[in-house]
Amino acid sequence: MDEPYFRHLFTPELESPVFVEGLPGIGNVGKIATRLLIEYTHAKPFAELYSPSFPDLVLINEEGICRPPRYECYASSTEKTHLIMLTGDTQPSLEDLVAHYDICGRILDFIEKYECDRLVTIGGVPISEPKGEVYVAATSPKLAADISGKGAKIYGEGRIVGATGLLLGLAKNRGLKGICLLGATTGLTADKEAAFSVFKFLMKILEIDVKTEN
Amino acid sequence: MDEPYFRHLFTPELESPVFVEGLPGIGNVGKIATRLLIEYTHAKPFAELYSPSFPDLVLINEEGICRPPRYECYASSTEKTHLIMLTGDTQPSLEDLVAHYDICGRILDFIEKYECDRLVTIGGVPISEPKGEVYVAATSPKLAADISGKGAKIYGEGRIVGATGLLLGLAKNRGLKGICLLGATTGLTADKEAAFSVFKFLMKILEIDVKTEN
Amino acid sequence: MDEPYFRHLFTPELESPVFVEGLPGIGNVGKIATRLLIEYTHAKPFAELYSPSFPDLVLINEEGICRPPRYECYASSTEKTHLIMLTGDTQPSLEDLVAHYDICGRILDFIEKYECDRLVTIGGVPISEPKGEVYVAATSPKLAADISGKGAKIYGEGRIVGATGLLLGLAKNRGLKGICLLGATTGLTADKEAAFSVFKFLMKILEIDVKTEN
Amino acid sequence: MDEPYFRHLFTPELESPVFVEGLPGIGNVGKIATRLLIEYTHAKPFAELYSPSFPDLVLINEEGICRPPRYECYASSTEKTHLIMLTGDTQPSLEDLVAHYDICGRILDFIEKYECDRLVTIGGVPISEPKGEVYVAATSPKLAADISGKGAKIYGEGRIVGATGLLLGLAKNRGLKGICLLGATTGLTADKEAAFSVFKFLMKILEIDVKTEN
Repeated sequence: MDEPYFRHLFTPELESPVFVEGLPGIGNVGKIATRLLIEYTHAKPFAELYSPSFPDLVLINEEGICRPPRYECYASSTEKTHLIMLTGDTQPSLEDLVAHYDICGRILDFIEKYECDRLVTIGGVPISEPKGEVYVAATSPKLAADISGKGAKIYGEGRIVGATGLLLGLAKNRGLKGICLLGATTGLTADKEAAFSVFKFLMKILEIDVKTEN
Repeated sequence: MDEPYFRHLFTPELESPVFVEGLPGIGNVGKIATRLLIEYTHAKPFAELYSPSFPDLVLINEEGICRPPRYECYASSTEKTHLIMLTGDTQPSLEDLVAHYDICGRILDFIEKYECDRLVTIGGVPISEPKGEVYVAATSPKLAADISGKGAKIYGEGRIVGATGLLLGLAKNRGLKGICLLGATTGLTADKEAAFSVFKFLMKILEIDVKTEN
Repeated sequence: MDEPYFRHLFTPELESPVFVEGLPGIGNVGKIATRLLIEYTHAKPFAELYSPSFPDLVLINEEGICRPPRYECYASSTEKTHLIMLTGDTQPSLEDLVAHYDICGRILDFIEKYECDRLVTIGGVPISEPKGEVYVAATSPKLAADISGKGAKIYGEGRIVGATGLLLGLAKNRGLKGICLLGATTGLTADKEAAFSVFKFLMKILEIDVKTEN
Repeated sequence: MDEPYFRHLFTPELESPVFVEGLPGIGNVGKIATRLLIEYTHAKPFAELYSPSFPDLVLINEEGICRPPRYECYASSTEKTHLIMLTGDTQPSLEDLVAHYDICGRILDFIEKYECDRLVTIGGVPISEPKGEVYVAATSPKLAADISGKGAKIYGEGRIVGATGLLLGLAKNRGLKGICLLGATTGLTADKEAAFSVFKFLMKILEIDVKTEN
């Protein structure tokens, strides 16, 4: 195993799904928000991604059962929106640049097979006094303006590191459309509140009905 | 030489062999236990693995003869069990993630050619006051329960680094069965006692007759 | 995406173009001088280079629009000289030796398709009290002497790191001709004066008419 | 350019040449001794090796002419012995394990084309009070004993790092014969005396007539 590969569990029937990514990162906002979406939409895991750039170890659960670190793909079909969601145990080391590009490219190959052409990537943005803001960056001015009109702030003049940024940038080069949602967080601990703010905003723009009390 | 390769010395006749791995690591438990098994079963070296991710040096023996660092495969046939055993001089650097995955994948390819579908990997687990305990992690709950029933403790909620963990995790993804035995050790020096505890336990579960006095 | 690739925007019509490279580096002399040349000659971007060895992030502009880091190729046709100019956001890490060699090789492949056989690479040379000097290194003694005769000092007994040096060295091995111009700079900040000195000198040797007041 | 390659200048006529390697290293003993041999035998450069794992820079001579770092192969024919000699500007970083293995493998491929099956690699061994000793390690006990009988000490129970060790070890795995000569040196500076001791010893065992006064 000297390159990343997908392991299929089953092939979901999806129509023009939206792809949502949330991996471990700043304040773990992306991973927690995506987990909330997976649970809320009763999504099912249908594929796993393994990579030789993930840590060279196995994770052991409470029963003593091992498995290598991985990304997991979930599928769900809500009334208005079909979804592919990606989360995982880890990300490649930030120093392993080629691994990041390679894995993001393969994820895009994978979702394009499902005729997915819209992406939402989720992360956190470190801010000293966060108040539940959600920031947006996008692949086009129109898309940025649309999402901004629904309540997100434009994330201008910065950079977004790791898969959350790179997936969007490489998607743009392929002609796909997408946005990145960044939850304001101190980033010091796993930030459930920031993740919940992004989750609620995401439900709104995906037009998924949701009743929650904060 | 830009990728790992096996060098065959001879082809042993083996029937459904069990694969046992013990490489240098915590307390050197895995390597010492495997060496004991090699000696006890009068095993013969039949293959060598060389890798460009091993140290860029040669080892010189007392006669002044050089050889590159390597892994060695031994074969033996006891009354009830055929064995392939792997030990070696070194492991790739823990930072060289891809090398670890690549080499483990090639080892699994290699043993599958010998129709081996059961693995035992051996390592050490650092504990402040070890008392000869042997821990087990496995590819399935049934296997973990079986081995636990023979006297090992379940190694739950942790991680196992390096080849000892990764071989098992990648084997599981291929549908192979296996266990990892971890000898409790302070890990400060080469721990012969911990290795001997694992060796004895291993002899029991492999059903190899052994008379020893601790 | 596990290797660098060029993305073409359009195919310019160029006759024996001269290739000019200026990437971020010491005092940013190369990038600023090349930017001046791009603006002065009203050059148009016609290709982009992306690489998995560039930083694993996206850059966001003031409108919130993202793009991956890249090199950009510009083309222009002045009365006497056709030009291909290369600049960019970044360079691979100096530690990533293979990426540097690989990208430089691909750039040379790219310009050879446009029948370009002359190169000018631009950088800075750190000097404690710079006075606008321009230094030259070349692929041949004749070329070094020619450029020296036009006012540059020979850059002797040293080394030139990164793309500015390597492009020239690899070009020489292919039988191409080229020079490297190094602007004297303290290198502490982006040095517009040093860049302007190199720009003026470059205009002279490229025989592009230019009226400027320093 | 993403892998090492040889650039041929001409094809020398050689009969069963002996290969001698001396690259920069401890006390620069290997490089200096090989340079002495090149000069003494009036050897001619006939090939160059370039590698993307060499430093990403160009070297500039006093005339301002650039070239990438490289290894150089020289050929000479003395009355009794034909020789291929390898020296160079640099070695890959000791951390770049794969590059070391890859380049050494390519060098062996290269010399085997010239039907060369005997090697001498040269290095230094750090010793607090060196007295001109030459140590030997070899691919076989017979060869070690032969060379030891001619005045070298057996280098036992150690390791030899970099190309000097690895070339010999990989050569042994191919069935080639060779020795490594290590000159005793403090290793603090370029050690011409240690290199001269190795050179004299080498002349003796290669049966090249040499008259020198130490």
